[in-house]
Amino acid sequence: MLVLAIDPGYERLGIAILKKNKNKEELVYSDCFETKKEILFKKRFNFLGREIRRIIKKFKPEILAIESVFFNKNQKTAMKVSEIRGAIINIALFYNLEIREFTPLQVKVAVTGYGRAPKNQVIEMVKKLIKIDDRKRKDDEFDAIAVGLTCLASEVLLKKQ
Amino acid sequence: MLVLAIDPGYERLGIAILKKNKNKEELVYSDCFETKKEILFKKRFNFLGREIRRIIKKFKPEILAIESVFFNKNQKTAMKVSEIRGAIINIALFYNLEIREFTPLQVKVAVTGYGRAPKNQVIEMVKKLIKIDDRKRKDDEFDAIAVGLTCLASEVLLKKQ
Repeated sequence: MLVLAIDPGYERLGIAILKKNKNKEELVYSDCFETKKEILFKKRFNFLGREIRRIIKKFKPEILAIESVFFNKNQKTAMKVSEIRGAIINIALFYNLEIREFTPLQVKVAVTGYGRAPKNQVIEMVKKLIKIDDRKRKDDEFDAIAVGLTCLASEVLLKKQ
Repeated sequence: MLVLAIDPGYERLGIAILKKNKNKEELVYSDCFETKKEILFKKRFNFLGREIRRIIKKFKPEILAIESVFFNKNQKTAMKVSEIRGAIINIALFYNLEIREFTPLQVKVAVTGYGRAPKNQVIEMVKKLIKIDDRKRKDDEFDAIAVGLTCLASEVLLKKQ
Protein backbone atom coordinates (compact mmCIF):
# COMPACT_ATOMS: atom_id res chain seq x y z
CA MET A 1 0.00 0.00 0.00
CA LEU A 2 1.38 3.36 -1.07
CA VAL A 3 -0.01 6.52 0.55
CA LEU A 4 0.46 10.16 -0.41
CA ALA A 5 0.11 12.12 2.83
CA ILE A 6 -0.36 15.88 2.90
CA ASP A 7 -0.54 18.53 5.59
CA PRO A 8 -2.06 21.31 3.47
CA GLY A 9 -1.00 24.95 3.61
CA TYR A 10 0.11 27.54 1.15
CA GLU A 11 3.09 28.98 2.98
CA ARG A 12 4.38 25.56 3.92
CA LEU A 13 2.88 22.32 2.63
CA GLY A 14 4.13 19.07 4.16
CA ILE A 15 4.12 16.06 1.84
CA ALA A 16 5.18 12.44 2.29
CA ILE A 17 4.96 9.06 0.59
CA LEU A 18 4.61 6.08 2.94
CA LYS A 19 4.65 2.43 2.01
CA LYS A 20 3.33 -0.53 3.96
CA ASN A 21 4.49 -4.09 3.26
CA LYS A 22 2.97 -6.66 5.59
CA ASN A 23 3.50 -5.02 8.98
CA LYS A 24 6.35 -2.73 8.09
CA GLU A 25 5.86 0.98 7.39
CA GLU A 26 8.49 2.69 5.29
CA LEU A 27 9.02 6.36 4.54
CA VAL A 28 9.70 6.55 0.79
CA TYR A 29 9.86 10.32 0.44
CA SER A 30 9.03 13.52 2.26
CA ASP A 31 9.40 17.21 1.66
CA CYS A 32 8.07 20.61 2.62
CA PHE A 33 7.07 22.94 -0.23
CA GLU A 34 7.49 26.55 0.75
CA THR A 35 6.24 29.53 -1.19
CA LYS A 36 7.19 33.07 -0.33
CA LYS A 37 4.55 35.53 0.85
CA GLU A 38 5.67 38.10 -1.71
CA ILE A 39 4.69 35.85 -4.59
CA LEU A 40 1.18 36.22 -6.02
CA PHE A 41 -1.32 33.75 -4.55
CA LYS A 42 -2.10 32.26 -7.98
CA LYS A 43 1.57 31.62 -8.73
CA ARG A 44 2.00 29.86 -5.40
CA PHE A 45 -1.18 27.93 -6.05
CA ASN A 46 0.01 26.93 -9.51
CA PHE A 47 3.41 25.85 -8.17
CA LEU A 48 1.84 23.63 -5.50
CA GLY A 49 -0.52 22.02 -8.05
CA ARG A 50 2.38 21.29 -10.40
CA GLU A 51 4.53 19.78 -7.66
CA ILE A 52 1.72 17.53 -6.41
CA ARG A 53 1.02 16.25 -9.93
CA ARG A 54 4.75 15.57 -10.31
CA ILE A 55 4.88 13.56 -7.05
CA ILE A 56 1.76 11.54 -7.98
CA LYS A 57 3.17 10.71 -11.43
CA LYS A 58 6.55 9.75 -9.94
CA PHE A 59 5.41 7.51 -7.04
CA LYS A 60 1.92 6.44 -8.24
CA PRO A 61 0.31 6.30 -4.77
CA GLU A 62 -3.11 4.62 -4.39
CA ILE A 63 -4.45 6.74 -1.54
CA LEU A 64 -4.39 10.42 -0.64
CA ALA A 65 -4.40 11.00 3.13
CA ILE A 66 -5.04 14.66 3.84
CA GLU A 67 -5.52 16.59 7.04
CA SER A 68 -8.76 18.56 7.35
CA VAL A 69 -8.66 22.21 8.34
CA PHE A 70 -8.92 22.98 12.01
CA PHE A 71 -11.84 25.33 12.68
CA ASN A 72 -9.60 28.29 13.01
CA LYS A 73 -10.19 31.56 14.72
CA ASN A 74 -8.88 33.16 11.55
CA GLN A 75 -11.54 32.41 8.94
CA LYS A 76 -9.52 33.94 6.10
CA THR A 77 -6.66 31.47 6.71
CA ALA A 78 -9.14 28.57 7.03
CA MET A 79 -10.69 29.49 3.66
CA LYS A 80 -7.33 29.83 1.91
CA VAL A 81 -6.16 26.44 3.23
CA SER A 82 -9.54 24.97 2.17
CA GLU A 83 -8.85 26.21 -1.36
CA ILE A 84 -5.49 24.42 -1.37
CA ARG A 85 -7.19 21.30 0.00
CA GLY A 86 -9.80 21.47 -2.78
CA ALA A 87 -7.09 21.76 -5.43
CA ILE A 88 -5.21 18.77 -3.98
CA ILE A 89 -8.36 16.61 -3.74
CA ASN A 90 -9.24 17.54 -7.32
CA ILE A 91 -5.79 16.46 -8.56
CA ALA A 92 -5.94 13.21 -6.55
CA LEU A 93 -9.41 12.35 -7.91
CA PHE A 94 -8.17 13.06 -11.44
CA TYR A 95 -5.46 10.41 -10.93
CA ASN A 96 -8.01 7.99 -9.38
CA LEU A 97 -6.59 8.02 -5.87
CA GLU A 98 -8.82 7.08 -2.96
CA ILE A 99 -9.32 10.00 -0.58
CA ARG A 100 -8.98 9.72 3.20
CA GLU A 101 -9.43 12.77 5.41
CA PHE A 102 -8.26 13.01 9.00
CA THR A 103 -8.84 15.75 11.56
CA PRO A 104 -5.85 17.10 13.53
CA LEU A 105 -7.40 15.33 16.56
CA GLN A 106 -7.50 11.94 14.79
CA VAL A 107 -3.84 12.33 13.80
CA LYS A 108 -2.74 13.20 17.35
CA VAL A 109 -4.68 10.30 18.85
CA ALA A 110 -3.35 7.83 16.25
CA VAL A 111 0.29 8.88 16.71
CA THR A 112 0.53 9.76 20.40
CA GLY A 113 -2.63 8.22 21.90
CA TYR A 114 -3.56 11.65 23.24
CA GLY A 115 -5.73 14.23 21.40
CA ARG A 116 -4.15 17.26 23.03
CA ALA A 117 -0.54 16.24 22.54
CA PRO A 118 1.80 19.18 21.84
CA LYS A 119 3.57 19.43 18.47
CA ASN A 120 6.99 18.29 19.73
CA GLN A 121 5.44 15.13 21.21
CA VAL A 122 3.88 14.31 17.82
CA ILE A 123 7.29 14.74 16.18
CA GLU A 124 9.05 12.57 18.78
CA MET A 125 6.48 9.79 18.33
CA VAL A 126 6.72 9.96 14.52
CA LYS A 127 10.49 9.41 14.84
CA LYS A 128 9.82 6.32 17.00
CA LEU A 129 7.14 4.89 14.73
CA ILE A 130 8.97 5.03 11.41
CA LYS A 131 12.60 5.07 10.32
CA ILE A 132 13.61 8.59 9.29
CA ASP A 133 17.10 9.67 8.30
CA ASP A 134 18.85 12.52 10.10
CA ARG A 135 18.18 15.24 7.53
CA LYS A 136 16.74 18.35 9.15
CA ARG A 137 12.99 18.56 8.50
CA LYS A 138 10.34 21.22 8.97
CA ASP A 139 7.46 20.52 11.36
CA ASP A 140 5.06 20.41 8.39
CA GLU A 141 7.01 17.49 6.93
CA PHE A 142 6.64 15.56 10.21
CA ASP A 143 2.95 16.49 10.25
CA ALA A 144 2.51 14.96 6.78
CA ILE A 145 4.29 11.76 7.92
CA ALA A 146 1.97 11.66 10.97
CA VAL A 147 -1.06 11.91 8.64
CA GLY A 148 0.36 9.06 6.56
CA LEU A 149 0.90 6.89 9.64
CA THR A 150 -2.68 7.61 10.76
CA CYS A 151 -3.93 6.49 7.36
CA LEU A 152 -1.89 3.26 7.37
CA ALA A 153 -3.15 2.45 10.89
CA SER A 154 -6.78 3.09 9.90
CA GLU A 155 -6.46 0.95 6.76
CA VAL A 156 -5.34 -1.96 8.94
CA LEU A 157 -8.37 -1.44 11.18
CA LEU A 158 -10.67 -1.32 8.15
CA LYS A 159 -9.32 -4.65 6.93
CA LYS A 160 -9.79 -6.29 10.32
CA GLN A 161 -13.48 -5.37 10.43
CA MET B 1 -12.61 37.89 -25.33
CA LEU B 2 -14.11 34.68 -23.98
CA VAL B 3 -14.83 34.42 -20.24
CA LEU B 4 -15.75 31.38 -18.15
CA ALA B 5 -17.81 32.73 -15.24
CA ILE B 6 -18.57 30.67 -12.17
CA ASP B 7 -20.65 31.14 -9.05
CA PRO B 8 -19.13 28.34 -6.96
CA GLY B 9 -21.10 25.96 -4.78
CA TYR B 10 -21.42 22.25 -4.37
CA GLU B 11 -25.17 21.90 -4.22
CA ARG B 12 -25.69 24.27 -7.12
CA LEU B 13 -22.87 25.68 -9.22
CA GLY B 14 -23.72 28.41 -11.74
CA ILE B 15 -21.58 28.47 -14.87
CA ALA B 16 -21.59 30.68 -17.96
CA ILE B 17 -19.51 31.49 -21.02
CA LEU B 18 -19.63 35.13 -22.15
CA LYS B 19 -18.09 36.61 -25.26
CA LYS B 20 -17.21 40.21 -25.99
CA ASN B 21 -16.71 41.47 -29.54
CA LYS B 22 -16.03 45.20 -29.76
CA ASN B 23 -18.74 46.60 -27.49
CA LYS B 24 -21.19 43.75 -27.65
CA GLU B 25 -21.51 41.14 -24.90
CA GLU B 26 -22.94 37.78 -25.88
CA LEU B 27 -24.05 34.88 -23.71
CA VAL B 28 -22.62 31.78 -25.39
CA TYR B 29 -23.67 29.20 -22.81
CA SER B 30 -24.93 28.89 -19.27
CA ASP B 31 -25.99 26.11 -16.95
CA CYS B 32 -26.43 25.18 -13.31
CA PHE B 33 -24.82 21.95 -12.13
CA GLU B 34 -26.75 20.40 -9.30
CA THR B 35 -25.58 17.53 -7.12
CA LYS B 36 -27.83 15.79 -4.66
CA LYS B 37 -27.11 15.98 -0.93
CA GLU B 38 -27.35 12.20 -0.60
CA ILE B 39 -24.36 11.66 -2.89
CA LEU B 40 -20.93 11.40 -1.27
CA PHE B 41 -19.01 14.69 -1.19
CA LYS B 42 -16.12 13.26 -3.20
CA LYS B 43 -18.42 12.00 -5.95
CA ARG B 44 -20.04 15.42 -6.23
CA PHE B 45 -16.60 17.01 -6.18
CA ASN B 46 -15.38 14.67 -8.91
CA PHE B 47 -18.48 15.33 -11.05
CA LEU B 48 -18.03 19.12 -10.83
CA GLY B 49 -14.33 18.86 -11.73
CA ARG B 50 -15.11 16.70 -14.77
CA GLU B 51 -17.86 19.03 -15.99
CA ILE B 52 -15.67 22.12 -15.66
CA ARG B 53 -12.83 20.46 -17.60
CA ARG B 54 -15.37 19.51 -20.28
CA ILE B 55 -16.64 23.11 -20.58
CA ILE B 56 -13.09 24.52 -20.76
CA LYS B 57 -12.10 22.03 -23.48
CA LYS B 58 -15.28 22.75 -25.45
CA PHE B 59 -15.29 26.57 -25.39
CA LYS B 60 -11.58 27.33 -24.75
CA PRO B 61 -12.13 30.47 -22.64
CA GLU B 62 -9.16 32.76 -21.90
CA ILE B 63 -10.27 34.01 -18.48
CA LEU B 64 -11.89 32.45 -15.42
CA ALA B 65 -14.08 34.92 -13.52
CA ILE B 66 -15.04 33.45 -10.16
CA GLU B 67 -16.95 34.84 -7.22
CA SER B 68 -15.15 34.83 -3.88
CA VAL B 69 -16.83 33.34 -0.83
CA PHE B 70 -18.85 35.71 1.29
CA PHE B 71 -17.60 35.64 4.89
CA ASN B 72 -20.40 33.46 6.02
CA LYS B 73 -21.78 32.93 9.46
CA ASN B 74 -21.59 29.20 8.70
CA GLN B 75 -17.85 28.50 8.58
CA LYS B 76 -18.36 24.89 7.50
CA THR B 77 -20.21 25.99 4.36
CA ALA B 78 -17.60 28.68 3.67
CA MET B 79 -14.82 26.08 3.91
CA LYS B 80 -16.63 23.59 1.64
CA VAL B 81 -17.27 26.27 -1.00
CA SER B 82 -13.60 27.33 -0.67
CA GLU B 83 -12.60 23.75 -1.50
CA ILE B 84 -14.72 23.84 -4.66
CA ARG B 85 -13.19 27.23 -5.53
CA GLY B 86 -9.69 25.80 -5.07
CA ALA B 87 -10.49 22.86 -7.33
CA ILE B 88 -11.87 25.20 -10.04
CA ILE B 89 -8.89 27.58 -9.84
CA ASN B 90 -6.53 24.60 -10.05
CA ILE B 91 -8.26 23.34 -13.21
CA ALA B 92 -8.29 26.81 -14.78
CA LEU B 93 -4.56 27.32 -14.07
CA PHE B 94 -3.83 23.90 -15.58
CA TYR B 95 -5.47 25.09 -18.83
CA ASN B 96 -3.59 28.42 -18.65
CA LEU B 97 -6.63 30.61 -18.04
CA GLU B 98 -6.16 34.00 -16.42
CA ILE B 99 -7.91 34.16 -13.04
CA ARG B 100 -10.14 37.05 -11.97
CA GLU B 101 -11.86 37.02 -8.59
CA PHE B 102 -14.80 39.21 -7.65
CA THR B 103 -16.52 39.67 -4.31
CA PRO B 104 -20.34 39.47 -4.15
CA LEU B 105 -20.23 43.23 -3.46
CA GLN B 106 -18.22 43.97 -6.62
CA VAL B 107 -20.68 41.94 -8.70
CA LYS B 108 -23.71 43.74 -7.27
CA VAL B 109 -22.14 47.17 -7.80
CA ALA B 110 -21.07 46.32 -11.36
CA VAL B 111 -24.48 44.97 -12.37
CA THR B 112 -26.94 47.14 -10.42
CA GLY B 113 -24.81 50.11 -9.27
CA TYR B 114 -25.78 49.29 -5.70
CA GLY B 115 -23.86 47.01 -3.31
CA ARG B 116 -26.87 45.97 -1.29
CA ALA B 117 -29.16 45.16 -4.19
CA PRO B 118 -31.45 42.18 -3.55
CA LYS B 119 -31.11 39.00 -5.61
CA ASN B 120 -34.15 39.64 -7.84
CA GLN B 121 -32.81 43.09 -8.78
CA VAL B 122 -29.50 41.52 -9.85
CA ILE B 123 -31.43 39.04 -12.03
CA GLU B 124 -33.58 41.78 -13.60
CA MET B 125 -30.48 43.85 -14.43
CA VAL B 126 -28.68 40.84 -15.91
CA LYS B 127 -31.66 40.33 -18.25
CA LYS B 128 -31.40 43.98 -19.35
CA LEU B 129 -27.63 43.91 -19.84
CA ILE B 130 -27.32 40.82 -22.02
CA LYS B 131 -29.61 38.94 -24.39
CA ILE B 132 -30.88 35.77 -22.70
CA ASP B 133 -33.42 33.37 -24.18
CA ASP B 134 -36.61 32.52 -22.28
CA ARG B 135 -35.49 29.15 -20.92
CA LYS B 136 -36.14 28.91 -17.18
CA ARG B 137 -32.90 29.38 -15.24
CA LYS B 138 -31.85 28.90 -11.64
CA ASP B 139 -30.66 31.94 -9.67
CA ASP B 140 -27.13 30.48 -9.60
CA GLU B 141 -27.03 30.57 -13.39
CA PHE B 142 -27.94 34.29 -13.37
CA ASP B 143 -25.32 34.83 -10.66
CA ALA B 144 -22.67 33.28 -12.90
CA ILE B 145 -23.74 35.53 -15.81
CA ALA B 146 -23.53 38.53 -13.45
CA VAL B 147 -19.95 37.53 -12.51
CA GLY B 148 -19.11 37.27 -16.23
CA LEU B 149 -20.58 40.72 -16.95
CA THR B 150 -18.55 42.15 -14.02
CA CYS B 151 -15.40 40.64 -15.50
CA LEU B 152 -16.06 42.00 -19.00
CA ALA B 153 -16.72 45.48 -17.56
CA SER B 154 -13.51 45.40 -15.51
CA GLU B 155 -11.44 44.22 -18.48
CA VAL B 156 -12.65 47.26 -20.44
CA LEU B 157 -11.60 49.49 -17.55
CA LEU B 158 -8.18 47.82 -17.36
CA LYS B 159 -7.60 48.50 -21.06
CA LYS B 160 -8.57 52.16 -20.71
CA GLN B 161 -5.99 52.74 -17.97
